[in-house]
Amino acid sequence: MKEMRIGLLGLGTVGCGMLQVLARNAGEIERRAGCALKVSSATARDLDKQRPADLSNVALVKDAMQIVRDKDIDVVVELIGGYEPAYALIMEAIKCGKHVVTANKALIASHGNEIFQAAQEQGLIVSYEAAVAGGVPIIKAIREALSANRIQRMVGIINGTTNFILSEVSDKQRSFSDALSSAQLLGYAEADPTLDVAGVDTAHKLMIMAATAFGIPLQFSSVYVEGITEVEVQDVNYAKELGYQIKHLGIAKRVDNGIELRVHPTLIPTHSILANVSGVMNAVMIDGDAVGSTLYYGPGAGSEATASAVIADLIDLSRMLNSAPEHRVPHLAFQPSALSDIPILDIGDTQTAWYLRLQVEDKPGVLAFITRILSELGISIEAVLQKDTATDGNKIVPLILLVYPVEGSGLKRAIEQIEASDDIIEKVISYRLESV
Amino acid sequence: MKEMRIGLLGLGTVGCGMLQVLARNAGEIERRAGCALKVSSATARDLDKQRPADLSNVALVKDAMQIVRDKDIDVVVELIGGYEPAYALIMEAIKCGKHVVTANKALIASHGNEIFQAAQEQGLIVSYEAAVAGGVPIIKAIREALSANRIQRMVGIINGTTNFILSEVSDKQRSFSDALSSAQLLGYAEADPTLDVAGVDTAHKLMIMAATAFGIPLQFSSVYVEGITEVEVQDVNYAKELGYQIKHLGIAKRVDNGIELRVHPTLIPTHSILANVSGVMNAVMIDGDAVGSTLYYGPGAGSEATASAVIADLIDLSRMLNSAPEHRVPHLAFQPSALSDIPILDIGDTQTAWYLRLQVEDKPGVLAFITRILSELGISIEAVLQKDTATDGNKIVPLILLVYPVEGSGLKRAIEQIEASDDIIEKVISYRLESV
Repeated sequence: MKEMRIGLLGLGTVGCGMLQVLARNAGEIERRAGCALKVSSATARDLDKQRPADLSNVALVKDAMQIVRDKDIDVVVELIGGYEPAYALIMEAIKCGKHVVTANKALIASHGNEIFQAAQEQGLIVSYEAAVAGGVPIIKAIREALSANRIQRMVGIINGTTNFILSEVSDKQRSFSDALSSAQLLGYAEADPTLDVAGVDTAHKLMIMAATAFGIPLQFSSVYVEGITEVEVQDVNYAKELGYQIKHLGIAKRVDNGIELRVHPTLIPTHSILANVSGVMNAVMIDGDAVGSTLYYGPGAGSEATASAVIADLIDLSRMLNSAPEHRVPHLAFQPSALSDIPILDIGDTQTAWYLRLQVEDKPGVLAFITRILSELGISIEAVLQKDTATDGNKIVPLILLVYPVEGSGLKRAIEQIEASDDIIEKVISYRLESV
Repeated sequence: MKEMRIGLLGLGTVGCGMLQVLARNAGEIERRAGCALKVSSATARDLDKQRPADLSNVALVKDAMQIVRDKDIDVVVELIGGYEPAYALIMEAIKCGKHVVTANKALIASHGNEIFQAAQEQGLIVSYEAAVAGGVPIIKAIREALSANRIQRMVGIINGTTNFILSEVSDKQRSFSDALSSAQLLGYAEADPTLDVAGVDTAHKLMIMAATAFGIPLQFSSVYVEGITEVEVQDVNYAKELGYQIKHLGIAKRVDNGIELRVHPTLIPTHSILANVSGVMNAVMIDGDAVGSTLYYGPGAGSEATASAVIADLIDLSRMLNSAPEHRVPHLAFQPSALSDIPILDIGDTQTAWYLRLQVEDKPGVLAFITRILSELGISIEAVLQKDTATDGNKIVPLILLVYPVEGSGLKRAIEQIEASDDIIEKVISYRLESV
């Protein structure tokens, strides 16, 4: 396959994000996939609208059915959302022999069984990584990476809106409705936020994760769902006093007599990694009997984050259609002929911020001397910590500095000049600092 | 393919872990893969040693070369480690047309280019998920899940030994050598810990990650490597005062003029998720231009955790060898005919710990009344928080309880009885509590 031809249904946030990423990273993607991904045609409710994506090489089609029936399309990408017309279009696409990639969690959670069965009968693929946790590859983790495991439990923060709201309630002591208003202002919540704050969106995603983890059919109506509209600041605070954070979680758990599927506000220990997932970020912890606990974290929504998952599905699909060696995942991810000779930099040429500890004579002028050297070499100080620990009369005290990013070679020169002074006792201790 | 026949080189910790997981989860694995994974033959230096795995159906072979040349073997799994004889065995396996799965980071980082080229020429697959971060599927994340992205940076805690030691130094104020001794006692560090504490093991893994993320050949000698042997408690503490944790990180970064590859002790902000990865756990944060930051966390070593990655590679391999629809990843991870009808439990039947808030009259006997009801229903109290906020004279105070796990229906009964009392004002607030 030289080129995979895509029919795109929906030119909203994610659809435009996908077109932008495909255009910007066309080289990178073809170096990996060994074939090009080409959006041949697209449809949307309003085709005349201005959009943040280049549509000049895309045939815009008014009737979505025309795209799903087009003989020249290999894959249909459904980014319309909701039940109809998405369901009818996907079923027709399958009938017409097209593979499908979708980000539609509501549709998969509610009608996935019929959709997958139709695809199975035709030998077609329906991929849906983007339906759960946006850019976090949670479906790939469950279906592929953990395939050796009997999965015992999954605990997920899989709705950015509710996590943002609870983070605001906890960090800024705001009421639910206040926090919801901010979320709406920032574009993190819909004008009608019901699906999110009532927990239905989380339940959709949890059902999809549970089906793939436990090998059960989709059965959305069995999920217990409780939202966050009643959560009060005082309970968040009392929980904190007891060592817990309140998070809105989707939990799927294998127990002796069956499977628990529940969505509700939940206390979790403050020091756990999940408790430290704040704002609109998503994270899922999965317990497998062989691997133990693994966790997957990242942006659960957003145009390009979601598009990242859609495109990964498309590349996987291009590989699955052909077992010839050149269609497999390349050993080093990129096609052997497409490796790059971009140089690995010498450590002296890499720029980082630094932590420095000097043991200095506790006398006037020492700090001035050091700051002059740093300044002459163009090194700026971010913070100084001077510890008066000279209790044994020897007047040697530690002086700690954080400095702004500078090349390793520049810092080395500064340290050499500083160490040359008689006022500096011992070697200067230096560690790099990284923002993460 | 009904059965994939595996030749296993090495019956150490990971080799035995793999046999145990394959035996215990044979059903689960076949429901997913649609074929069985069978270890036909195995070799080790000492074949007579007692091992924690059932070897009764495995042909034990003294000469490893005999396994890699065996016509009845489809895949060779190399779990010997080190350079030789692992290198010679893998090259011979490839020459004999076998696919290879390995956990050998030193070998891939140093000789991966030759190994992959030989495999490529023969149309064979060499998989190495277990070589980096043990059970954390980081190679799959980079090669497949993030394939739409131009990867900008990776920051990883990818050596459990050094992370354990630095966690001990930070949390328990111990010296490096003290912490190293504990690590050795607990089996987290080798008798000769040099490869770990000097950073070489981290550098091996970083090189492999960087090659797959940036599309560059393996070039191990270009990695800058600094260990943790010099890290002192005082610097860990000064860093903490300034709002940072010192972690031993592998960092790969794309900058304008090339790529930075560096391993060194690093200050990172205390509130970052990476700073909260402690003990022997691993985590890697990856920044992609489309997806933003995603993070992958889990056990970086251990027999079954590493085996989990080896077996996932084997299942992926079984799919790659054949493009027929029945070899693909099933839509719901398990083969459609192998879905299970295990029931989803009613929420009333699910057991969790609980947080309860009651608004009570601030008078004697109220707490006794509540604890009696709970005790009669078999509900045990873990913690009580009584807040005296009755400043406006109305004598209504919040009473917060944490109770040990109880079924939802049992708790509901307790709440009904409590709410029936005149001393309880307002509805009882209740949230579930989960350990994560």
